[in-house]
This record gives sequence, structure tokens and C-alpha cells, in this order.
Amino acid sequence: MAILEGVPAGIAVTSAEIAHELGRRRLGYGRGARMSFEQDEVEFIGGVRHGLTQGSPVAVQVGNTEWPKWEKVMSADPVDPEELASMARNAPLTRPRPGHADLAGMQKYGHTDARPILERASARETAARVAVGTVAKSFLRQALGIEIVSHVVELGSVAVKPGLQPRPEDAERIDADPLRCLDPDASARMVEEVDAAKKDADTLGGIVEVLAYGVPPGLGSHVQWDRKLDARLATALMSIQAIKGVEIGDAFTQARSRGSEAHDEIIPTADGVRRVTDRAGGLEGGITNGEPVRVRAAMKPISSLNRALQTVDVTTGEPATAINQRSDVCAVPAAAVVAEAMVALVLAEAALEKFGGDSVAEIQRNLRGYLDNLVIR
Amino acid sequence: MAILEGVPAGIAVTSAEIAHELGRRRLGYGRGARMSFEQDEVEFIGGVRHGLTQGSPVAVQVGNTEWPKWEKVMSADPVDPEELASMARNAPLTRPRPGHADLAGMQKYGHTDARPILERASARETAARVAVGTVAKSFLRQALGIEIVSHVVELGSVAVKPGLQPRPEDAERIDADPLRCLDPDASARMVEEVDAAKKDADTLGGIVEVLAYGVPPGLGSHVQWDRKLDARLATALMSIQAIKGVEIGDAFTQARSRGSEAHDEIIPTADGVRRVTDRAGGLEGGITNGEPVRVRAAMKPISSLNRALQTVDVTTGEPATAINQRSDVCAVPAAAVVAEAMVALVLAEAALEKFGGDSVAEIQRNLRGYLDNLVIR
Amino acid sequence: MAILEGVPAGIAVTSAEIAHELGRRRLGYGRGARMSFEQDEVEFIGGVRHGLTQGSPVAVQVGNTEWPKWEKVMSADPVDPEELASMARNAPLTRPRPGHADLAGMQKYGHTDARPILERASARETAARVAVGTVAKSFLRQALGIEIVSHVVELGSVAVKPGLQPRPEDAERIDADPLRCLDPDASARMVEEVDAAKKDADTLGGIVEVLAYGVPPGLGSHVQWDRKLDARLATALMSIQAIKGVEIGDAFTQARSRGSEAHDEIIPTADGVRRVTDRAGGLEGGITNGEPVRVRAAMKPISSLNRALQTVDVTTGEPATAINQRSDVCAVPAAAVVAEAMVALVLAEAALEKFGGDSVAEIQRNLRGYLDNLVIR
Amino acid sequence: MAILEGVPAGIAVTSAEIAHELGRRRLGYGRGARMSFEQDEVEFIGGVRHGLTQGSPVAVQVGNTEWPKWEKVMSADPVDPEELASMARNAPLTRPRPGHADLAGMQKYGHTDARPILERASARETAARVAVGTVAKSFLRQALGIEIVSHVVELGSVAVKPGLQPRPEDAERIDADPLRCLDPDASARMVEEVDAAKKDADTLGGIVEVLAYGVPPGLGSHVQWDRKLDARLATALMSIQAIKGVEIGDAFTQARSRGSEAHDEIIPTADGVRRVTDRAGGLEGGITNGEPVRVRAAMKPISSLNRALQTVDVTTGEPATAINQRSDVCAVPAAAVVAEAMVALVLAEAALEKFGGDSVAEIQRNLRGYLDNLVIR
Repeated sequence: MAILEGVPAGIAVTSAEIAHELGRRRLGYGRGARMSFEQDEVEFIGGVRHGLTQGSPVAVQVGNTEWPKWEKVMSADPVDPEELASMARNAPLTRPRPGHADLAGMQKYGHTDARPILERASARETAARVAVGTVAKSFLRQALGIEIVSHVVELGSVAVKPGLQPRPEDAERIDADPLRCLDPDASARMVEEVDAAKKDADTLGGIVEVLAYGVPPGLGSHVQWDRKLDARLATALMSIQAIKGVEIGDAFTQARSRGSEAHDEIIPTADGVRRVTDRAGGLEGGITNGEPVRVRAAMKPISSLNRALQTVDVTTGEPATAINQRSDVCAVPAAAVVAEAMVALVLAEAALEKFGGDSVAEIQRNLRGYLDNLVIR
Repeated sequence: MAILEGVPAGIAVTSAEIAHELGRRRLGYGRGARMSFEQDEVEFIGGVRHGLTQGSPVAVQVGNTEWPKWEKVMSADPVDPEELASMARNAPLTRPRPGHADLAGMQKYGHTDARPILERASARETAARVAVGTVAKSFLRQALGIEIVSHVVELGSVAVKPGLQPRPEDAERIDADPLRCLDPDASARMVEEVDAAKKDADTLGGIVEVLAYGVPPGLGSHVQWDRKLDARLATALMSIQAIKGVEIGDAFTQARSRGSEAHDEIIPTADGVRRVTDRAGGLEGGITNGEPVRVRAAMKPISSLNRALQTVDVTTGEPATAINQRSDVCAVPAAAVVAEAMVALVLAEAALEKFGGDSVAEIQRNLRGYLDNLVIR
Repeated sequence: MAILEGVPAGIAVTSAEIAHELGRRRLGYGRGARMSFEQDEVEFIGGVRHGLTQGSPVAVQVGNTEWPKWEKVMSADPVDPEELASMARNAPLTRPRPGHADLAGMQKYGHTDARPILERASARETAARVAVGTVAKSFLRQALGIEIVSHVVELGSVAVKPGLQPRPEDAERIDADPLRCLDPDASARMVEEVDAAKKDADTLGGIVEVLAYGVPPGLGSHVQWDRKLDARLATALMSIQAIKGVEIGDAFTQARSRGSEAHDEIIPTADGVRRVTDRAGGLEGGITNGEPVRVRAAMKPISSLNRALQTVDVTTGEPATAINQRSDVCAVPAAAVVAEAMVALVLAEAALEKFGGDSVAEIQRNLRGYLDNLVIR
Repeated sequence: MAILEGVPAGIAVTSAEIAHELGRRRLGYGRGARMSFEQDEVEFIGGVRHGLTQGSPVAVQVGNTEWPKWEKVMSADPVDPEELASMARNAPLTRPRPGHADLAGMQKYGHTDARPILERASARETAARVAVGTVAKSFLRQALGIEIVSHVVELGSVAVKPGLQPRPEDAERIDADPLRCLDPDASARMVEEVDAAKKDADTLGGIVEVLAYGVPPGLGSHVQWDRKLDARLATALMSIQAIKGVEIGDAFTQARSRGSEAHDEIIPTADGVRRVTDRAGGLEGGITNGEPVRVRAAMKPISSLNRALQTVDVTTGEPATAINQRSDVCAVPAAAVVAEAMVALVLAEAALEKFGGDSVAEIQRNLRGYLDNLVIR
């Protein structure tokens, strides 16, 4: 269940488009069997009529075909305690997993069972992000001509060849690759790495990149720390489950370079002012500069391992092995799809701040007026 | 000028402490002459009485001894145009610097002079962050026993030896090092790297790390994307001038490791539940887990170079060399001090959410009650 | 569909309790037939397990048995235009009603049909407020011992006798009155006034009052304009459909009195410091003072009248009579129930700011510690 | 000290204009001697250059010529305790005043001296509101053609004649009236009422009204409770010191009328769609409807009386008379000026949401495009 506020009127969007994006979120070599039997049932609860947003908040419900199995165990209303006592699924989970919110969450909220933490912290929540992100993407495309594409740039120890930057027209090809990777050689080696990790009952992380094309200069602002667009992208990406690092453009490489090799020189061209390079990821001083916005996120390896990690049993305080609930090897290709959604949401919000407007037509008009009157193009 | 809202009553803080922290912000080998003649005059405008916060917002003004030179050029009220026309300092800046907010800011706000962008986007603003960060640090120390320390882990191509993690008691030694680096060998090589870059009229970036000790488990939350503490730290750090990358713990290294080597196993000890390692930087699921919070930020090289970069003149549209206003080689050591302030502000806000409280005494009491009643320690 | 964020763990609440409150929202003499055939189907979508909140956001879905009739007309996904064209229900509404959002909403969002405005602006939305307000009330009762009660103080030209202030134990009696009025004489005259208005195809407004008992001193704050609890109550109440005026305590009467008769003098009693009166409605300087919080809201008469008002047809620009969709005479008793919910939500938020805490047990402990250590009780 | 964020570039404003508005805030028959010797020294600290806003936050400092007397007593840094002990001005204030934040504030923050509460809660803070409100007013006038005017409609028991609604061109005449009242007869009786109250060592409250002309339809929104403009105006006004009631248009009168007499019928005119009346105060469904925005605020009588009220001494718990720090009889005319500022700030924020834009030129262009394309004018 997700609600997106501040949506202008007139964006064309359908539940089929959301279902399609949710399907992309299940992509990727290295996912467990669960991905294939979990199905997402999408329904708009509000905000859209006859395929167009209405200006009110958009509410989307994503159902899960697995729910019936959990209906009693996760019932909101009280259930007969005897019946619950007899259900194995309802047994308290007392061996928190390293790398998860389990233990810290139990301490924070005073739970002796990790279940409430684990269910809420689950990456299942990213379905909601992708659902509302679809609306944001449609808005960006229809009102501003912005296109977003993502790909996997590193998986475990394998990296794509340097400087590889997909364009929107590569999106289909990327989705068709088992690891959503644009470099076929790297992809083949990634498949091997996944297989090897699987054999060792181990897991993998990686690095994803999102690019947004067609972003006008002037989104975000340098005037206040919390209006900087890079800072807002950082929050959005870091909030994704298992993401622990974020860089704008080539940040970590830039940090190790000299200034003369790190910045994007400005040149006049027939199409207006342009940059020779895009090391800054399209952002200077927290403002978009007209070049593609380009950000990367580092995902840690999945922390539920078949070779379970060491922990304590919260009931007894004794050493134990952590609970183990799933068997994916890696979720990096899916994380890239989620990252697309988060980037779209941040850009959409920044565009609305810049161009105001309550309808697609109004925003298009305001954008045009702005671009036509730039002090320099 | 900075205002910090939501400050509880009873924090001991003086303007001398703020001046001391502002002095630390000017530290570091590789700064230009300006740092020595710029002086910070600190004054509380509100929120503090007789050395104690009162519960109301704390306002701090940081003056600048350079102001008289700029009084006319930056005058808020109108100035005689003829007088202005005769002042070289007032000439419009029309050759925006790559790597700065200059050009995008001019386009966004409709300025034909980069001056208003450049002054507001200036890293001078970090003085305000350090000033209010001092209040946050005092709060964390006095109410929760949290201590924060920072150091430089990479400068240009030089990195400290792996695994080096300072403790609060190292703070003085770090400040005494020319590059705020705890590894003397690395520091010596960093000095050489700065000298070499200076000789080439070039600049350097680097990577800083901030550690917070004594943080209780349970700050931040997994329940909502924007309540995750890692996401909020990401925004806070990424918002610092020239910071383009952020990682929690060893994020980028973790992303390249297998799961069995990436997480922090949990063990019972005489002092309660502990982690064998702290690769996660003290954060799991967006919640502090009781281990030190540890974050890194990547700073790009200073983008004002003496060997000026290529740009366009906004007035003519012709190629030009960018304006060049300063001559620091690197500001990485100072960035670490600013990063301390931002981490302190985020932790202080999260602590107030968790423990409520309008006075230091109340927060101490609530913290004690919480720790005494943890489901498992 | 409503989502309540920031809910602590451990609040006991069931869907039956929410259904009960939603039933109270349909109470009141003067409602049309629709109230009896509209039924509310309540379901928790998240945040509650086995009758207890879990610390995560609480999502509640309130269904409507009328939905099947509207399924095509309000379909989110596109519908065959020919089929739509043949449905009378789908005809565009082009004669905006004075007193409603219709016209201004159409202008703002660029709609030529009032339907999207009218549906979203509908008081049906208050079901969501009452649903999440039930959670807030349960929290306030269980964690802080706060009880909330509401009643109708004026209806059209009839007012209850002055100084009448119900206590929590009067709640059942109030709900049993046809107009949720505690003064039987006034209630009888209100019934007559409703009957008379109905006969004239006219509508009525009125004034409701909400009282919260057991509120500790110290919620809200004087330190910042937007932290004042009276200001936050004002927003919450004014945001209710058809509410156009708000007063704290006896504000408008106080404004016409002299100071010596307007304030609540302070006296020591065996139970601690108390006020002789409660003209201030339990709020001084935007902070609760330990007396009952007491607020009033003025509701304008229902603006859909059977004797339809004058308007223009948006398609033709010609004079017309406004569309007329319902035939309630007055909704004041229901508005009081909605106002209870809004007051509960504001108090719950302020309590969480003051006492922090992620679970009922933690908040109870923090409250006790605070009250035991007050500088004066 | 006040900081206004989100200010677009290109608003013409000077410190003299702010000083002028601050002077208006000191107007009104019934103020004590303090008003004449307190002087406001205004200085922009940031955000304005050569008389134009730059797009960055505007910071204004309002000094007080009385400060030197309080320098030691209110010193931020510690002062020699012996020296303080000898100063009468520094003696703790332990007899909280009914009607003020004093007691509740001391309980909340744990103070045994009312001084920190009293100074922060002081209506002196409204100088900051008026200062930044001046910037908002200039913005509204220059970018949107909106003009704001205020007047006193009731003072104690005296009310102006019904239906009196000043226009912008009456502003000067209102300021010239001793009570900022447009009805000379009422004004004369108000003067008498003030004199009588003064003789009795008593105080008075009243009701003020603010009108905004030229507001386009479509500011605010019905789609979300906290985006309704009436709700946001309610918070803004209720947050003003001593304001306890707010109504939009004729809310309380409307509540007592029948629907057929309470709403504003819509008619086509040569100038477009208009309302026959403006009982709704220019707001329907939380959206501006193109008619003047009109709001009222009820101010309680000043709670510091020369005939001091009964209280307890916090040190001893014994009955006492409240501290008495000032001797104004009424501050209603000044409250109207403050209310103008708050209305301007809310309208400016709503206009920026609707029209986006980072400069006056951009907002003017977006407004024009919107008005030219309204579905119906």
C-alpha cells in the first residue's frame, strides 16, 4: 500500500504499467524460487480516473498471492491464542540476523519476537516504491521529457568496463540481460560469480547506476543544505534496503584525482552551453546543470545466508545461529529498478518545486517559458 | 548566522567552545593565506543564558573580519550606482567555474552575475554548521555520553593503513597533525602530495571518516524510508560543499565482498550483546545497533584552480577561462570537522525523537529507563 | 484509505473499535437517507498484529458498499468511451456549487468536469480521519490516561445553556441524543429547527466543542510559532470539511471581556496547582497547562441545498442552478465526532514529541518520570 | 532575528520598508510608555543585495535599544555569580502570571525561574514576524499584484458597524486612526473604553480582520488536510501571541444562519465569474476562489494587569500575586499589523507552490500563463 502526495492532474498512467515495473523488480539472476511464485496484484485505490491522474494523492495497493498462508499469523485483529499456539509459522523468532534490523528493532520497540521488525523491514516494501515511482516516471516523461535508465555496474568482484553509460534506448536490452548489465563479458562473469557463491551457500552485493536524461538545469538549490538535490538523492537511495553507499557521478574516483582532471569544463556549442565530460553526475552545488543526472548506490551482500551467521538467542542470551528465511544469492539487478523509482520521485518533487503547477499542461507551459528565457542556454 | 531549533534546556555551552570548533575548521595543510586572516567572531543571539541553553532556538552569529572590504559591494540596501560602477570588486562575474554552482545557479535564478550564487554557495557557510554542531555535540556528550571524532582517511592518491579507527582520546593528536590524519606515514606522504599539487597549480580531494562512540541502540527506524538514520546521515553529509559520495561503514568494500565476510556477527559478552566487527558502521536497517556509528564522505578536489578551467563568458557566449577566487590546494581536513558537526546534528535529532524530553535531566532519565528495560542488552 | 505514521508499539486496537467510531460519525438527526445505506467496511492493511500496534505505520482501509455502482464511472484504468458515454452517472458536472471547492478546484487543476474535485473534497474523507483518530484515542487513553469527549453547543439559532461542559462519563448519553447535545431542552429545540429547515429545503450549521481530560502540562511549546499547540489544533480543526472558525476555550467571549475577567487564576490545592476557571481551554502560550483542553469549531450550513443556489455553467458561461447531490439538513453532530479524531491526532503527536518513546510501556515510564519531577505540581 | 527561507530572486525591498512596518506594529492607543522608548534597529544579515532579494534565505536582525540594560542579566556566556546576585533585575521570577506561558513553560522545561519562558514567549517576537512579513508582502505585490490591509473590528465591547470592509486605499487612513479602526464613531467609543479600562487598572482584547485583494483563484488545495489554505491561515494566526480564535469570512455568523443565506452565489459578469457576496472569505474547500481573502482573529485581553491576578509562588507553593511587567491596556491595533504579516507569509508560500519559480520574472510569467488558460475565468 503506497500513497503518493502532490501529484499533478493529467498524468497518463495505468495499473498495467505499474504491474510491468513491478515485474522488472523481480528480474535478475540469483533470485530464489520465491520471486517466481510471488505475484503482485496492483490496484489503484485513488487519485486516478480513466487512466489520468486527477490532482489528488495517488494510492496504489500491491497485493501478494502468498497472503492466505499468513492470514492468521499476521492477522490484525486478535486470533484465538490456542489456535496460534499450534501454528509453527507463529513461533516467535528469537535469533536475530546480523546485517538486518532484527536485533536493534526489537530493542527499540520492546519486542521479544523479531517477526514485526523483519516483516516491516523486508525488501518487499520496495514494491510500494516501484509502484509510486512509476507515476513519477510517467510524470517526468510526459511533462518534462525526462527518461530514466539503470544498470548494474559491479557485482561482487566483477565490474563492467569503465565509462560505460547506457542511454534510454538501451533499457530493453538491459532488462533482457540476466544481471541487467550492459557489458556482455562482465555479465557472463557475473553469472559465474553468482553460481560460485550459490555453491558456497553465500551471497553477493554490488553497485548500480541510475541515469536521468533530459533534466533541465536548475532543479534543486544551493541556498539551503536540505534543498541540495544531491543530498536529497542521497537520502532517497540510502533509504533502500541493503544500500549502504551512494555517490554522485564519479565521486570516489574524483576524490582520488587532481582538480584539473576532476571537473567538467564548459564549452559553447550549437545546442547551447555544454560540458565536455559528466564526472559531476549532472549536479553542481546541489543543482542540476543540464547534463544527465548520474548516481550510484552500493548494495551490501544479502544478509540472510544459507550458511547461517552467529548470533544470540534473545530468550536465553545464549549463542545461536541466525534464523534464515530466504535463499537469494543476490538482488542487485532488482535494486537498480528500485533505485530508478527513488531517483524519479526525487526529480519529480524538485521539478514541482521549480515549475509549480497543478496539471501537466501547466508544468509544460512553465518549463517552456523558463527554457525560453534562460540567461544563457 | 545560524538558528538551531528544538534544543532542550540545560545544555552547557559557551561562545568560546564554538570559537574553538571554528578554529578547528580552519585547520589543515594546504589552505591558502585567507584562512589565517579570516577570523570568526562568535556571538550567541538567543537561546543561551549564563552558559546554559534555555529550551528555545539557539541563534549564533559568526562575523567575519573581512566584511568591511565588502560592505558596499554586498550592501543589502541600494548603493549609489556611480559609486558602485567605480569599484572593481563590484564588476559582474560572468565566467562561471566548472564544478561550482555558478552557471546552474545563474540559470535557475535569472542572474547575469555569478556573485549572488558564488557567495551563497561558498563553503564559508560551513562555519554556521560547525557553530550549531557544537551545541549538538555538547548535548550528545552531556545527555547521552556520546563522543564524536573524525579523521582524514584518504588524500589524493594516499590512504591511511587499513582498519585504522581513532577513538575519542585520539582527537587531540589528530588535530595536531597537519592533515588531521592518525597515520604518521600517510600524513607525511599527504604533505608531499599537497606540495606537488601546489607546485602544479592544481588541487586535491580526499575521503574523511567520522565515528560516534557511545550511541545507544535504537536511534532511527526501519519503519519508514525517511526515518532511516543512514538515509538521514547521507543527506547531512552529502549537503556539505564538495562532498559527492557517502558510505556507511565499509559500504563499497562490502559491496564487493561475499555475505559471509560482510556482516557483523553477534555474540554475548560480559558487557551484553556485542558485534565481532563493525563493518556496518553501527547501523542495521537504518537503526543504530549499539556499535560505533561510522560514516565516510568523499570530497572532490577544490574546483577553483590557479590553472583555470575552460568555460564560457555568459555575457558574450564566447569561450573563456573561469574566474578564480582562491588558492587553497585542499580542504579535506576541514571537511572532516564539518562532517563531525553534521553527524552530531543528525544524532541529536534522532536522540530527541527517541527520548523526547525538553531538558537534559529529562532525557538522561528517559535514556536510563530505556537502557534498564531493554529486552536484551 | 488512511495511513498513520509514527505510531508506537503496544497500543491495543481492533477493527471493531474503528467500526464503532465510524458508526458514531453517521449519527445525528438531519442526515439524509444515504447515511443509512452507506456502510463502512473496515480493514487494517498494516501496522497491527493480533490486536496490538507494532511500531510501524498503521494503514486502514474503509470500504463503501456503494462502490459497485460507481466502478466504471470512477474506474482508475481506462474504460471503453462508448460505454461511458451511455452512462448518465458519467456525464460531466459543469454547474459548480457555491460553498464547495468545485469551481476553484476546476480552475486550479484544469478540469472541465467538477467530478474529480467533488469526490476528493467530499466529507466522505472524514471516515479516514475518524479511523486513524481511533488509534490516536486508544494511544492517549492507554499511554497517558487522556479521555476525549465532544458535543454540539449550537445548532442554527439554538444554543445550549452557558457553561455546560460534559465529562468523559457523559459520552454515552451524548451519543444517545439525536443531536449529540447534552442539554435536553436545547436538543428538543434543535430538532424543531432541523424540521423547519427541512420543510424549507434549507440547511443548517452549528458549533461543536471537544474536551480532552487528563492532559499533562507541557504539551506543545511557546518557543516557535509552529510548535504552539493551539496553532496546531487550529489547523487540524479548520481542515475539516465545512469548518470555517475555531476558538480555544472561550476565545471570542474573552476578546470582549476585560482582563480581570478573562484569565484563569492559579491556586494551590491538595491535588497540586490548579486553575479556578478554564477559560483558556487548557492552553497558555501554546502549551497545555494541566486543565482540560477545550476547543470549538464553527461549521457552515451544508452548501448542497435542495433549493439550489445560483451559479454558472462552466461549459457555456451562462447562469444556471448548481448541481445538487444530497439532501442532508445538517451534519453538525457528525462533525463533532470528526473533531474528536483531529484533536486526538494533534495531542498524540504532541505527546510523542514530549515523551519520545517507541512503545506504550516506554511512554508510560517517561510520563511518570516527568510528573514525579515537575518543578511544581 | 528572523530567517525567511524559499524567497525568490528579484523582490525589491529595503531595510527602511521593514522599519516602517515595524513602526506600524507599535501603533495604537492603549500602549504603555515602553512602546515609545523601544526602538527597532533593522539590519539585513543576508539574502538581499542592493535592494533586491537574491534567491537565498533572507535574514533580518531587529535590534532593541533597551538591550544594554539587560546585557548581564541575559548574557549568553556565564557571568560572575556574585555580580549577578547583586542585580535586582536578575532575581528569579517565581510568581507565574495566569494567561501566560509562565507556569506551563517552567514545568515543561524544568525551570524554577519564569524569566526564560517569559522572554521567549514575549510578543516582542512578533517584530520578527513583521520583518519577514514585509518581504512576503513586497513579493505578493510585485509578483502577483496582491495587496493586504487590516483593521480593528471589535475592541472590548465596541464593534464597528456591520459589513465594513476596507480596501487597500484605506490603509493610510486606518493607520492614522488611534485604534486602526475605519469607523470613526466606533473608534471614539473604543478610546473611551480604553480610558475606562486604564482607570480600573484593567486590560482589553478585541478582534482584528485582514483582507487580501487580488488573490488569484487556485491557491491552497482541497486534496489533503494540511494543504487547505484556510487550515494554514488558522495556524498562522492562532500562533500569534494572545490570539485564541480564528474565523474565515463570517464563520461564526454563517454557523448560525441557514444555507440559503450563508453561501456566495456565482454569476457571470463582464469581468468574468464573480460572487455576489464574500461570506466565505474568499476560500472554498481550502482553495482561494478569486474573491478577497478575509480572515479574523480574536485576541484575549492582555494578561499582565496592574491589578495583579492570583497565583502561587513556585518556590514556596504559597498563594501570591502574579508578577507584573508592563502596563499596556490593549495591543489589538498592533495585533492586526502582525496578522497582516502572517497572512502575507501564508499566501506567499501558497503562491510559490502554485507558480513555482525562483525569480519574480518567472513567477509573473507563470501566473500570466495560468490566468490566460483558466477553464473558466
